Amino acid sequence: MAYNLLKGKKGIIFGALNENSIAWKVAEKAYEEGGRFILSNAPVALRMGNIQELANACETEVIAADATNVNDLENLFKHSMEKLDGKIDFILHSIGMSHNVRKGLPYDKLDYHNYMKTIDISSMSFHKVLQTARDLDAINEWGSVVALTYVAAQRTLYGYNDMADAKAMLESIARSFGYIYGRDKKIRVNTISQSPTPTTAGSGVRGFDSLLDFTERMSPLGNATASECADYCISLFSDLTKKVTMQNLFHDGGFSSMGMSYRAITQYNKSFEDCND
Amino acid sequence: MAYNLLKGKKGIIFGALNENSIAWKVAEKAYEEGGRFILSNAPVALRMGNIQELANACETEVIAADATNVNDLENLFKHSMEKLDGKIDFILHSIGMSHNVRKGLPYDKLDYHNYMKTIDISSMSFHKVLQTARDLDAINEWGSVVALTYVAAQRTLYGYNDMADAKAMLESIARSFGYIYGRDKKIRVNTISQSPTPTTAGSGVRGFDSLLDFTERMSPLGNATASECADYCISLFSDLTKKVTMQNLFHDGGFSSMGMSYRAITQYNKSFEDCND
Amino acid sequence: MAYNLLKGKKGIIFGALNENSIAWKVAEKAYEEGGRFILSNAPVALRMGNIQELANACETEVIAADATNVNDLENLFKHSMEKLDGKIDFILHSIGMSHNVRKGLPYDKLDYHNYMKTIDISSMSFHKVLQTARDLDAINEWGSVVALTYVAAQRTLYGYNDMADAKAMLESIARSFGYIYGRDKKIRVNTISQSPTPTTAGSGVRGFDSLLDFTERMSPLGNATASECADYCISLFSDLTKKVTMQNLFHDGGFSSMGMSYRAITQYNKSFEDCND
Amino acid sequence: MAYNLLKGKKGIIFGALNENSIAWKVAEKAYEEGGRFILSNAPVALRMGNIQELANACETEVIAADATNVNDLENLFKHSMEKLDGKIDFILHSIGMSHNVRKGLPYDKLDYHNYMKTIDISSMSFHKVLQTARDLDAINEWGSVVALTYVAAQRTLYGYNDMADAKAMLESIARSFGYIYGRDKKIRVNTISQSPTPTTAGSGVRGFDSLLDFTERMSPLGNATASECADYCISLFSDLTKKVTMQNLFHDGGFSSMGMSYRAITQYNKSFEDCND
Repeated sequence: MAYNLLKGKKGIIFGALNENSIAWKVAEKAYEEGGRFILSNAPVALRMGNIQELANACETEVIAADATNVNDLENLFKHSMEKLDGKIDFILHSIGMSHNVRKGLPYDKLDYHNYMKTIDISSMSFHKVLQTARDLDAINEWGSVVALTYVAAQRTLYGYNDMADAKAMLESIARSFGYIYGRDKKIRVNTISQSPTPTTAGSGVRGFDSLLDFTERMSPLGNATASECADYCISLFSDLTKKVTMQNLFHDGGFSSMGMSYRAITQYNKSFEDCND
Repeated sequence: MAYNLLKGKKGIIFGALNENSIAWKVAEKAYEEGGRFILSNAPVALRMGNIQELANACETEVIAADATNVNDLENLFKHSMEKLDGKIDFILHSIGMSHNVRKGLPYDKLDYHNYMKTIDISSMSFHKVLQTARDLDAINEWGSVVALTYVAAQRTLYGYNDMADAKAMLESIARSFGYIYGRDKKIRVNTISQSPTPTTAGSGVRGFDSLLDFTERMSPLGNATASECADYCISLFSDLTKKVTMQNLFHDGGFSSMGMSYRAITQYNKSFEDCND
Repeated sequence: MAYNLLKGKKGIIFGALNENSIAWKVAEKAYEEGGRFILSNAPVALRMGNIQELANACETEVIAADATNVNDLENLFKHSMEKLDGKIDFILHSIGMSHNVRKGLPYDKLDYHNYMKTIDISSMSFHKVLQTARDLDAINEWGSVVALTYVAAQRTLYGYNDMADAKAMLESIARSFGYIYGRDKKIRVNTISQSPTPTTAGSGVRGFDSLLDFTERMSPLGNATASECADYCISLFSDLTKKVTMQNLFHDGGFSSMGMSYRAITQYNKSFEDCND
Repeated sequence: MAYNLLKGKKGIIFGALNENSIAWKVAEKAYEEGGRFILSNAPVALRMGNIQELANACETEVIAADATNVNDLENLFKHSMEKLDGKIDFILHSIGMSHNVRKGLPYDKLDYHNYMKTIDISSMSFHKVLQTARDLDAINEWGSVVALTYVAAQRTLYGYNDMADAKAMLESIARSFGYIYGRDKKIRVNTISQSPTPTTAGSGVRGFDSLLDFTERMSPLGNATASECADYCISLFSDLTKKVTMQNLFHDGGFSSMGMSYRAITQYNKSFEDCND
């Protein structure tokens, strides 16, 4: 069901890889809601996924950009404004990667070159997107920018590793730049802290399946899906949320406000059962 | 502009008094968005305002209920389900009052009878609304309940007095009941923490005008208006936010994430200027 | 080992019942650290425990006071200042009780009379202690007031029931009164959010043992004990923490900042093991 | 007045520059409290300040180390353990610097090379200290590590610039590493979020004097001084706080829990006075 919430709005969506990606779902919903947008991802990611399919379905195109590279971003914004025939109204940043996680280096054995890359890709890229947009005056007044994050920015989860620090920094960038962009251009900047989601990116984290089960039982509404996250993004891109800015918004079925649920503790208690009983 | 976001949805809106009320704006927007609902307020409030006008404009009616009285609430839910021909999908709780504030008793000279009344009216009434709805099984699955709150629940503001404690408790009730109602019925419960708003209720607080000016300058997007708050409520009642629950959501132009803005400190600095310069 | 941190300081300690009580441990440590103080508890609690033993060991006495009764509190402060020969420097508030919990009424079937009593005993009593002290000018400049709370004020735990709302309100009172008492008298007011602790009060909560096991495995340092909590209280009563006020301080071995630990998820995973493997 | 709280404890204190530095005060107090420690700072900082004076007063020595350089840190830990004849019990990290701030580049015109340096110096250095200590098994069980941070990590302050993001990341590192070091070695890691303090580092921030005045009036106990911060550090290094870990602890006279004080709003209101009145 569509509401025309993004009718007349123009956007850029970073990070769609395949049909499991949250960014992919956001693109589909944004299209349904009347938005027009450019898809972007890193050249290496474009080779792995099938984003062109998505572009076809959404009647748009893909512009490759390494989001850690300011020149690439400038090119992306300029071409996007040309193709879309005007400034941008909404942006989704769904970018994150840790070589330390990929290589199985635990948090007390980090490779510092990798750590810097984690920060550059997962946090600073967001600043680069915003600063480039600001330089080019590429976003309309009352535009809306959303980046995806995770509760590990507030609470340590075994295995999430240096991505926790990256997400904490990402959320800080949303506040810091949200102040400036809000004050000067009425543009809002927020992060959505999403349930663990079985995407290609998420599933790299150690012990991910157990965690999914635990958070499912802890969250009164269960884990939020990629598709539901896309709905939430649409609401934040729409004109219904014009005064929401500099916020980290949990979209997690209630997990972040839970200490212990009946369902999770009941399951936990089973771990003590004696098989000989 | 309307999107039909509440088409087919049925609601109850507590707390509309006059056209400055946030609840009043929520009713107007909910009507535009295709929702049908019952208006309710305390008998004493009904005598003060002109809510019948609003009821006419929204093609609905008013059912008086003292929200601290469980019998009144039972009656309200039963009649609402009859009139609306089905269970409820959305509820707005916009209720709060402190006799200590009204009588100018400062926080270190509270009258404890008044303090209890503040809690009963401003916090427990929310529990009573939820428990009554639960007893009567009056809310549909994936229904959405919103209560209005204020940042004083997290940070002390001169003059807000015992309402700060009431709002802290209100937000806790949203979490506590949100867990149960989410787990058992997929119903979400959230609070919106709104900018100071020049309503009849808000303007009772001491030094309110100065505060409004300060928060306007501190908030990168300026204070959020009652009408904008209504838009945000609509997004939370809609199907776009189904997995958001147990959250306190700041709708304040960024104020809650600000430490100091250029505009506010510049104004502040003027206070030190010497008139003889 | 003692440091003389409270040498010359005078206090009132509420809530010691028996040797498992946190307040009991605080009294023992405060005595070791050179503090002199009065013990107080409700008349009904005095009949249950063996607080007179503690009083003997600490060379002090017990003054009965129902902390919901302002007259009792006035009497307590007046007599304490007489016995201690001067104003008070530190206060511990360790008071909480829910008849709803005791009677097994779940959070969606609360008795509202009990709910009010929970709030009066567990939250408002703290305001009454502070307001009475303020009226009588009973606390010295740079005095320190601490109340005990629990993470349920931020995150819902199955079974903690209406005590969660009471603790949220308690923490708000610490901020609200902390502002006034700090501004006017340099007195600080804080709450300590303690690990679940096997005291007489704690053990009434449903599923308490499972919870203890879970939080033990989640917390990198394990659950904090009553004795360790007493050490922390001493640091907050001492002159080392003069500028800490209006804070909720977690003393929980790290639990509040954990999303998932290796030890807890490993135990959780055992719940899925098939006994026939 | 001293209590012998650090008797027998050995430490490393990073970041003392001159007698205004918080780290300088921490060294003085740690010495008074019976602690023995090594002072460390970057070679360039050593040339600017007079840290040798401090070393003399504390009967210790200075070991130069660039905290972004793992080799330097290894050398520092090894030599410290030699000189102190044993493993370390407490560490203070008081390190931060932004070339963007120094060069007056605003947050929407950041130089990305500088930004990386800000992160490396102000955030990653803390990880490097911890990881190096972990590799060398250089900290005793129940050791305590503290890093200094600022409320800008949670709320945007005009002029604090990219240091806000660095502090957010620093606090995340305290949690992430605190989990591992707590679980494996019972070592606690916390941050203290200190009032703005007129040190050499702090005074580089734009509009710092106005901010100091504002926070002084907002905080019920006034701004916390460097010396008071040192007292708080001692309490966190002592055995009184053994179960406090992964926390960000505000030491700010109450500022972080204030929305608006009477004193600040009264001053603010003066800015609107007409000189001709």
